[in-house]
Amino acid sequence: MKSLSDCSVTVIGLGLMGASLCMDLKRRNLCREVRGVTRSISTILRSFEEEAVDLATTDLGSGVAGADIVILSTPVRAVVTILERLGPILWPGTVVMDMGSTKAEICAAMEGLPPRIQPIGGHPMTGKETAGYASAESGLYEQAPWVLSPLARTRPETVALATELVKAIGAYPIVLEPVRHDRLVAAISHLPYLLASALVHTVADGAASDSTVWELAAGGFRDTSRVAASDTQMFLDILMTNREAVLTQLDALGGHLNELRGLLADCDEESLSEKLSCSQALRSAWQQNKALPAAQVGD
Amino acid sequence: MKSLSDCSVTVIGLGLMGASLCMDLKRRNLCREVRGVTRSISTILRSFEEEAVDLATTDLGSGVAGADIVILSTPVRAVVTILERLGPILWPGTVVMDMGSTKAEICAAMEGLPPRIQPIGGHPMTGKETAGYASAESGLYEQAPWVLSPLARTRPETVALATELVKAIGAYPIVLEPVRHDRLVAAISHLPYLLASALVHTVADGAASDSTVWELAAGGFRDTSRVAASDTQMFLDILMTNREAVLTQLDALGGHLNELRGLLADCDEESLSEKLSCSQALRSAWQQNKALPAAQVGD
Repeated sequence: MKSLSDCSVTVIGLGLMGASLCMDLKRRNLCREVRGVTRSISTILRSFEEEAVDLATTDLGSGVAGADIVILSTPVRAVVTILERLGPILWPGTVVMDMGSTKAEICAAMEGLPPRIQPIGGHPMTGKETAGYASAESGLYEQAPWVLSPLARTRPETVALATELVKAIGAYPIVLEPVRHDRLVAAISHLPYLLASALVHTVADGAASDSTVWELAAGGFRDTSRVAASDTQMFLDILMTNREAVLTQLDALGGHLNELRGLLADCDEESLSEKLSCSQALRSAWQQNKALPAAQVGD
Repeated sequence: MKSLSDCSVTVIGLGLMGASLCMDLKRRNLCREVRGVTRSISTILRSFEEEAVDLATTDLGSGVAGADIVILSTPVRAVVTILERLGPILWPGTVVMDMGSTKAEICAAMEGLPPRIQPIGGHPMTGKETAGYASAESGLYEQAPWVLSPLARTRPETVALATELVKAIGAYPIVLEPVRHDRLVAAISHLPYLLASALVHTVADGAASDSTVWELAAGGFRDTSRVAASDTQMFLDILMTNREAVLTQLDALGGHLNELRGLLADCDEESLSEKLSCSQALRSAWQQNKALPAAQVGD
């Protein structure tokens, strides 16, 4: 069975996630070769200078030629498009992973790869609100959950190789079926993004008549709105490929928000206190649990 | 005119905010004496041992006897109650400040203080989701906006002394009329809290059928939901003393959330992209502006 250290790994897309992955693979000497594929000439130069890659190119064909593992790290719908182009040009046995934030459409597209290719979906649950190569950093994946979504045809040794890679950069794997993954991340990632956007718009409305609101805004606003600064194209792809699950979560949240509003409007302090204490306890328990070593949580 | 270094300062309430203030005043040697009033015997011992105060007591009367400045640092409705008790026992000329998160009710209660007392409302715009003395720390107020709300009767030298105190611990003062303050913080503080609570409830609903959702939850959920872990009693007081403004903000947010939902449901990708790009730009601009030195923003 092939181990990671024998592999030539090609990462397609050198934004925040892809470039951070390259840096870990290259600087920790985890595989035989690290290649990057990007549309940007300046990113090619910079990634090479900073020893994030052994080789970088704008040409998809030469980037993936001879690669043992190809990892797609672009917005979700670009992953789907690139998968179509990859099919005919990959060597037999190549493992194709991705890092996209929704899994159902990508894993469906992976089904279309030729039978000689070994696909497996993936999604590291970490990131930042800033995008692009300039935001990339070594160690981004330390302690992060990394979802793996094998297809029916994915061989055990492919799952093992993907698992080895995930663990080598400090993340921990969680195997999830694509539709289940998409339903869960709708709640904990896509919903917070829309909430943050709505919050920013609401504050901006107030700022139209009193701009001091921006000056007062402190930690509460900063954290609750942080993800609104995320790359719009990335999130547009996410939302459009996970519409139903996101709409369901939006409606569930709307129900809770309406309930809170009603209790406050009615001055029903006892019920309001109960509902707020409940979320207080849940959020505190989650935080405490997150502080446990990753091995206890995910391994 | 009295300067801070001549003053004996009594802080009522040694939770996160009050104890952090004591630590700064005492350890930086900013005033003549620092006293703390708390209901907890263990907090008295701990604050004294850790040199957060010169003297601590459970007795309000002896705590404020002879104080030049009395600062109330309890939940909002406790501030209102304590103000009623303080009136008869304060020395003439005592400056009474508070650190409550809403200002209209507190400043109205301050109007009821005897004419010989010098009241001024205050609200430092910082904090943490953890409460109590154990969470207190020196330097909490560095770079934080600190709202001051003088009453009509507040003398210029009282505003000057409050300003001196705020600046001495590294915060920067912003003078705001109470109702205006409450309207602004409804948007940037009280609304995010309710959003965070609703988000936690929504994720918990999902967790009822698939608890893996807690395990996947990463930075986006962590930050967007952080303030839901805040002290419930503190926020209950805030919400109940700022109901109208909070309800207005909830409705404004509901409008934006509905609009986002509609665009996603209709697959109106162009308008969705426009709305998300707008909040992206606003949030990024705010962050960049916050990174400027405080003097450029608030001084």
